[in-house]
Amino acid sequence: MAKHVKKLSKTAGMAPGDLVLVGEQRTEKVKITIIDYDENQFQEKEAESIEECFLFKQTPTVTWINIDGIHDVETIEKIGRHFDLHPLILEDILNTGQRPKYEDFENQIFIVLKMLQFLEKSNEITAEQVSILLGPNLVVSFQEKTGDVFDPIRERIRKAKGRVRKMGADYLAYTLLDSIVDSYYALLERTGETIEDMDDELVANPFPETLKKIHRLKGDTIFLRKSVWPLREVISALERGESKLIKKSTRVFLRDLYDHTIQVIDTIETFRDMLSGMTDLYLSSISNKMNEVMKVLTIIATIFIPLTFIAGIYGMNFNPDASSWNMPELNWRFGYLGVWGVMLLVALLMILYFKRKKWI
Amino acid sequence: MAKHVKKLSKTAGMAPGDLVLVGEQRTEKVKITIIDYDENQFQEKEAESIEECFLFKQTPTVTWINIDGIHDVETIEKIGRHFDLHPLILEDILNTGQRPKYEDFENQIFIVLKMLQFLEKSNEITAEQVSILLGPNLVVSFQEKTGDVFDPIRERIRKAKGRVRKMGADYLAYTLLDSIVDSYYALLERTGETIEDMDDELVANPFPETLKKIHRLKGDTIFLRKSVWPLREVISALERGESKLIKKSTRVFLRDLYDHTIQVIDTIETFRDMLSGMTDLYLSSISNKMNEVMKVLTIIATIFIPLTFIAGIYGMNFNPDASSWNMPELNWRFGYLGVWGVMLLVALLMILYFKRKKWI
Amino acid sequence: MAKHVKKLSKTAGMAPGDLVLVGEQRTEKVKITIIDYDENQFQEKEAESIEECFLFKQTPTVTWINIDGIHDVETIEKIGRHFDLHPLILEDILNTGQRPKYEDFENQIFIVLKMLQFLEKSNEITAEQVSILLGPNLVVSFQEKTGDVFDPIRERIRKAKGRVRKMGADYLAYTLLDSIVDSYYALLERTGETIEDMDDELVANPFPETLKKIHRLKGDTIFLRKSVWPLREVISALERGESKLIKKSTRVFLRDLYDHTIQVIDTIETFRDMLSGMTDLYLSSISNKMNEVMKVLTIIATIFIPLTFIAGIYGMNFNPDASSWNMPELNWRFGYLGVWGVMLLVALLMILYFKRKKWI
Amino acid sequence: MAKHVKKLSKTAGMAPGDLVLVGEQRTEKVKITIIDYDENQFQEKEAESIEECFLFKQTPTVTWINIDGIHDVETIEKIGRHFDLHPLILEDILNTGQRPKYEDFENQIFIVLKMLQFLEKSNEITAEQVSILLGPNLVVSFQEKTGDVFDPIRERIRKAKGRVRKMGADYLAYTLLDSIVDSYYALLERTGETIEDMDDELVANPFPETLKKIHRLKGDTIFLRKSVWPLREVISALERGESKLIKKSTRVFLRDLYDHTIQVIDTIETFRDMLSGMTDLYLSSISNKMNEVMKVLTIIATIFIPLTFIAGIYGMNFNPDASSWNMPELNWRFGYLGVWGVMLLVALLMILYFKRKKWI
Amino acid sequence: MAKHVKKLSKTAGMAPGDLVLVGEQRTEKVKITIIDYDENQFQEKEAESIEECFLFKQTPTVTWINIDGIHDVETIEKIGRHFDLHPLILEDILNTGQRPKYEDFENQIFIVLKMLQFLEKSNEITAEQVSILLGPNLVVSFQEKTGDVFDPIRERIRKAKGRVRKMGADYLAYTLLDSIVDSYYALLERTGETIEDMDDELVANPFPETLKKIHRLKGDTIFLRKSVWPLREVISALERGESKLIKKSTRVFLRDLYDHTIQVIDTIETFRDMLSGMTDLYLSSISNKMNEVMKVLTIIATIFIPLTFIAGIYGMNFNPDASSWNMPELNWRFGYLGVWGVMLLVALLMILYFKRKKWI
Repeated sequence: MAKHVKKLSKTAGMAPGDLVLVGEQRTEKVKITIIDYDENQFQEKEAESIEECFLFKQTPTVTWINIDGIHDVETIEKIGRHFDLHPLILEDILNTGQRPKYEDFENQIFIVLKMLQFLEKSNEITAEQVSILLGPNLVVSFQEKTGDVFDPIRERIRKAKGRVRKMGADYLAYTLLDSIVDSYYALLERTGETIEDMDDELVANPFPETLKKIHRLKGDTIFLRKSVWPLREVISALERGESKLIKKSTRVFLRDLYDHTIQVIDTIETFRDMLSGMTDLYLSSISNKMNEVMKVLTIIATIFIPLTFIAGIYGMNFNPDASSWNMPELNWRFGYLGVWGVMLLVALLMILYFKRKKWI
Repeated sequence: MAKHVKKLSKTAGMAPGDLVLVGEQRTEKVKITIIDYDENQFQEKEAESIEECFLFKQTPTVTWINIDGIHDVETIEKIGRHFDLHPLILEDILNTGQRPKYEDFENQIFIVLKMLQFLEKSNEITAEQVSILLGPNLVVSFQEKTGDVFDPIRERIRKAKGRVRKMGADYLAYTLLDSIVDSYYALLERTGETIEDMDDELVANPFPETLKKIHRLKGDTIFLRKSVWPLREVISALERGESKLIKKSTRVFLRDLYDHTIQVIDTIETFRDMLSGMTDLYLSSISNKMNEVMKVLTIIATIFIPLTFIAGIYGMNFNPDASSWNMPELNWRFGYLGVWGVMLLVALLMILYFKRKKWI
Repeated sequence: MAKHVKKLSKTAGMAPGDLVLVGEQRTEKVKITIIDYDENQFQEKEAESIEECFLFKQTPTVTWINIDGIHDVETIEKIGRHFDLHPLILEDILNTGQRPKYEDFENQIFIVLKMLQFLEKSNEITAEQVSILLGPNLVVSFQEKTGDVFDPIRERIRKAKGRVRKMGADYLAYTLLDSIVDSYYALLERTGETIEDMDDELVANPFPETLKKIHRLKGDTIFLRKSVWPLREVISALERGESKLIKKSTRVFLRDLYDHTIQVIDTIETFRDMLSGMTDLYLSSISNKMNEVMKVLTIIATIFIPLTFIAGIYGMNFNPDASSWNMPELNWRFGYLGVWGVMLLVALLMILYFKRKKWI
Repeated sequence: MAKHVKKLSKTAGMAPGDLVLVGEQRTEKVKITIIDYDENQFQEKEAESIEECFLFKQTPTVTWINIDGIHDVETIEKIGRHFDLHPLILEDILNTGQRPKYEDFENQIFIVLKMLQFLEKSNEITAEQVSILLGPNLVVSFQEKTGDVFDPIRERIRKAKGRVRKMGADYLAYTLLDSIVDSYYALLERTGETIEDMDDELVANPFPETLKKIHRLKGDTIFLRKSVWPLREVISALERGESKLIKKSTRVFLRDLYDHTIQVIDTIETFRDMLSGMTDLYLSSISNKMNEVMKVLTIIATIFIPLTFIAGIYGMNFNPDASSWNMPELNWRFGYLGVWGVMLLVALLMILYFKRKKWI
Repeated sequence: MAKHVKKLSKTAGMAPGDLVLVGEQRTEKVKITIIDYDENQFQEKEAESIEECFLFKQTPTVTWINIDGIHDVETIEKIGRHFDLHPLILEDILNTGQRPKYEDFENQIFIVLKMLQFLEKSNEITAEQVSILLGPNLVVSFQEKTGDVFDPIRERIRKAKGRVRKMGADYLAYTLLDSIVDSYYALLERTGETIEDMDDELVANPFPETLKKIHRLKGDTIFLRKSVWPLREVISALERGESKLIKKSTRVFLRDLYDHTIQVIDTIETFRDMLSGMTDLYLSSISNKMNEVMKVLTIIATIFIPLTFIAGIYGMNFNPDASSWNMPELNWRFGYLGVWGVMLLVALLMILYFKRKKWI
């Protein structure tokens, strides 16, 4: 859980706008893909170097440059220089600890958000930062590593499916955002199922382990909330912003996206409420279970302690010869059996009493 | 409880506006009813196919098309094409996991909300999505399955009862909303009664089962809240919106509806507060009960342990022959009776002590 | 507590504006009193039928019609027809489960609020709905049953005491509101005293009963809050509203009333905070008390168990004849006394140890 | 704690503006002091009757009338009549249960706030109401009883120290407010120290008493919050208000005062957070302590119970003569010593086991 | 923790604007450094007295005066007189208990904020107040004691690195703020690591000590929150303010700084959530552990108590000679072994029963 708060301070002491990668250092080659299209033409290529992309800058067609891997600071710098990006944008792209944000620079819109994924292997949720730069007829997307969440969009562009080819760069940016928000749903569904399973487990048979699972899930929802909450403002700002980069027809879609984001946040809040209720239920269940155990044990002890006392009585060595008052029972014909009888009676009465009190 | 968070992700990876049913797949035939009226005429028919409805589009009378069953994607698409609906509206109609929302497209208003019902059989609250489309002289309502909540409205239209026949499509849309919000009251009343019963049970005789019931009710109120809360904004937007589809005379009614919605939300919040108080009371009651049991058991043990010790003393085998200091009591005339006396005295003193301390 | 959430659903399925009494059905005769005054004249009469009131409609004097008992739907309808009230107003008057609300219809202002009372007999707080209709030179007030909270106002009008006779209908409406808010103070004071008593009891001698009392008080404050909270908006809307029915000189008084309402809400919030703190204190106190008991009991047992063991040792039957190693203590001259000594010593050491550890 | 909610209802049933003292009845003589100054002159006198003050009304100099004791309703009424005060102001001055408020009547500004003091004797915080009336060249301050919080201001006026003599009545009103807010700091510091001491005590050696202290402190912070919180709005309204009684140069000071008020509120909130954390820590500590005791006691019992069993075995009276299988150990040469050995071994093994489990 | 609330009240009773150091009294010499630069020139010197700085006032170059040590009230006063500062600014500079604030005086902007540091030695977080005064071509910064957080900025100015030399005084003020906010990250990271460690420790092996650590961390986050929260408004006001001292190009940077501040606050809130969850987990863990211990102990006792009873039975001294019904078992050939058998059987059955119930 706490891992999510690390790796924040690398830029401390640096000048604002100095470029340094904050996040995992990687060594794979940065992968740059260019898709250039309008309603009639379509071109796709993998660029060897970033310079290849710059040729598409002038064209009236929509150009989507996708950069997988941001660890090559030099590439990012070149892009910055070429597209005349504000140094703070470059810094934000490289700082993977960024909070979702929206920045409107007259003829560029810059969006940072989080792509969330559940890693089965390590059983934890990871966040990858995605930065999207929207310019006139241009979308540049930056990912930390190669992912496949944008593949359906590529497919739709290639096959001219849906309306993506007919609309501009702003719609493309929207679809990128949309595909990321859509991917949250899968995550939420998974988390929801885990919570449901846990809820059943909780009612049936609570274990100390359960609380740790709840604790971890709580940490997850805190993390999810932190990653998604600011997105609300981002998309709201995008929709209501006055940038002329966003066409009116796209704003309807952004409003829909906004609703989806609210729904994601709602669901996360619901999870928090549910988990909080589950903690209470768990603590109560476990305490009930323990109390039950202790009660049974104590009842067993409580029944035998008086019996032991009776046995102890007749284990005393008072001298019957000294006085006929001294333990005459020992010489009675049915003394032994009588004591057994008394003891069984005492035990029985106690059990009945406990039964009537609903203790057993 | 957790079931409410499932079935969200089917549309992930699809293009925005692609039509896919998110929710339960059904096979019954979609039922389409058309009611067409103005103050003087009235016509009602069940349409075989959606095309029949389109004839009513031109008429100056108010047309209400009610569609029970949204699983026939094709029908929805036809409606969309004919009435020139925005693709996102169609997507929202089909996505039954939608949050209550309000969308104003110049000459169309689109509203999504939840119809809530308590299923006696499965003892749980279910939500069915209702979408309402308001156009000029046109209301189209979409339900997941055939329900009877709109029947009183149909009756009022048929018999020209109330003011519904005298007013326009906006008033009809309002009555639909109103009948749904009214149906929440029944649900709340039922929940309120359950809470009241539980509150009595809690004070009289708390069981571990009770907590699970409270837990379930908490889940229910979380679900209710999630379903109703956004409706507040929806109706507020409807009332204060600037759409010319809503006449001024109808706005008064919408304001009243808004008040009802607030009251529903208020009541849900009150339930949450009450349930939270009940959890505390339950936990305390159950712990008091257990403590009481343990105390009694411990008191029994505590009384007998010293007695057993005394009996143990005179069970020792010190040789009286070796020394007259060795256990002379054993030979006393009233040794045995004396020991009994001492033991009774000890027990009595302890009981008195416990009594005075108010422990028993 | 839960009773407050019942009786909500009677109007479900009815047309908006249909008149039906939601609340207790009563049979007493509806009592209608008319007070008509200006600075110089004053007239007061009890009307046999509602029609008598209508004569006062035209007069330039201020007319106050007070209706005790709203169960006669017909009377309400007649008033509605005569004064040309919006059907929703009539519905609201009859629906006693109404939330405090404010509705401004150009030349009518309609206010609903709650009159709260503590019933000594049933030891609970009840809410009665009061509706106030303010028109030009007209105030109509509706109460569920005959009450005496407005008596001082009548007295002031009769005796021309204070400024009420010199001011208009808006000031009269204000004094009605003011007298109701003033009556909240008495209720709060009573609740405050109960909380104070409980706080003392809590510190001195907590009982399981105490928690139930706290629980009930919590329910009361939830109910109070629900009844008073919306009043804030109502009075604020009244004061800041643009209706020309409210004169500027009256607005100053409304601002003062607003401050009083805020103070009432503040006090309720304070009660909630205090009650919440008391629950914690109670739970801790009761648990301390129980722990104390268990500790003493366990200490008694712990002291005697080792002693019993020692006694058990010398109750063993090892044959001294078989070996001089076998229990030679039994034949020692001071064996018995020695064992007593050892036992006393052990007990003493344990007691000392417990004392030093501050356990006893 | 609950005392703070008493004495609210005396005005219920009275006409708005009727003058009645709500609060402690006092009998000392009301003390009226007049200070009249401008940059060059200064005059100070104690007035016998309120009429003396009225002479200063006309002068162009700043006049400060301070009234210690508001229980003389007649005096207040005279002031009201002379300065043409709104009746609600007079009511507010006399109602000591007033919430801090701000009222702007064109050429009069009226402020109510609370002077808080810690009474060492009764170990509680008391609130005294201070009302300040600001008119053109006039400040009238009303205190419940003679206090000394305004003495430094008098001193500064007398000695023409600071800028108070050079500025107007608005600045004087500001300094009065400022001196009251400053006095909160002392109170907060004291409370802060108490909390710090308690925090140390909590970690070192928690007692049941501690919780009651925390409970009382919580009550105090609730009371402080209630008294100070509304001041925020009061001062904000004063600073941002449009009254021409407040000069622009004074607004800077009011903004500073606003910051101080926020800081006071912040600190109170911090106290609440800290006290809440301390309750948790206390409950946990006390429960840890108790658990520790119970564990040690139980361990002692647990060690001796098996030993007692062993001793019990060899206290059985099986007849060795009947069979050589019957308790041959009793005749063994080292039987007795062997049993001791076994018992010591058992005890040792148990202790070791408990040690290894870190139970002791 | 509570130390953070001390030292607030020194100014109570003083005139507003009176200069008095509130905070630690220090005796070291105040250190004044002047840096004067524009894009082409650069000059740096350590001033002996504050008068030296005044020479730089007129120059068109940017002048940064940094004052380490504010305990020399006289120096501060001289600065105030020379730069014509509002007396409240001077008071704020000297009052180290100040809340972060922003004050805009036409041609001067004044900012107070907190520099936070973790002191390894005392293991606590300390806050040092930094005041920044921005005028035309002038920045004056006041620190409580010599720190090194501004060193990288000096270095950048000296070496004309980054854009600082090319931009104005507003950008310099921004970099100062930025470097302080950056320094929060290091602190957060450290705290985050501590929390992570504690989280691991909590799951593995909770100790009573752990709770005290959590308690201290909670206190720290309360303190952090209090120190950083108001900064949000400060920077927001700075960015959106209308002062012409802030150029448009700098506002972009301020927006970025604002985002960083939000991120800091977010992280602090996350810490609070995590710590709250950890308290619950800790309390539950410790209680589980204790329950486990008690259960084992009780099980041991529960097994031996019935066995001791059986042994007690055959320790009774019923006279076999008196009746053949009296304890014939004692004379049976396998009586003793049989009893052992019975006892082992009983023990075994109990263990099996406990096992099956999953108690051991």
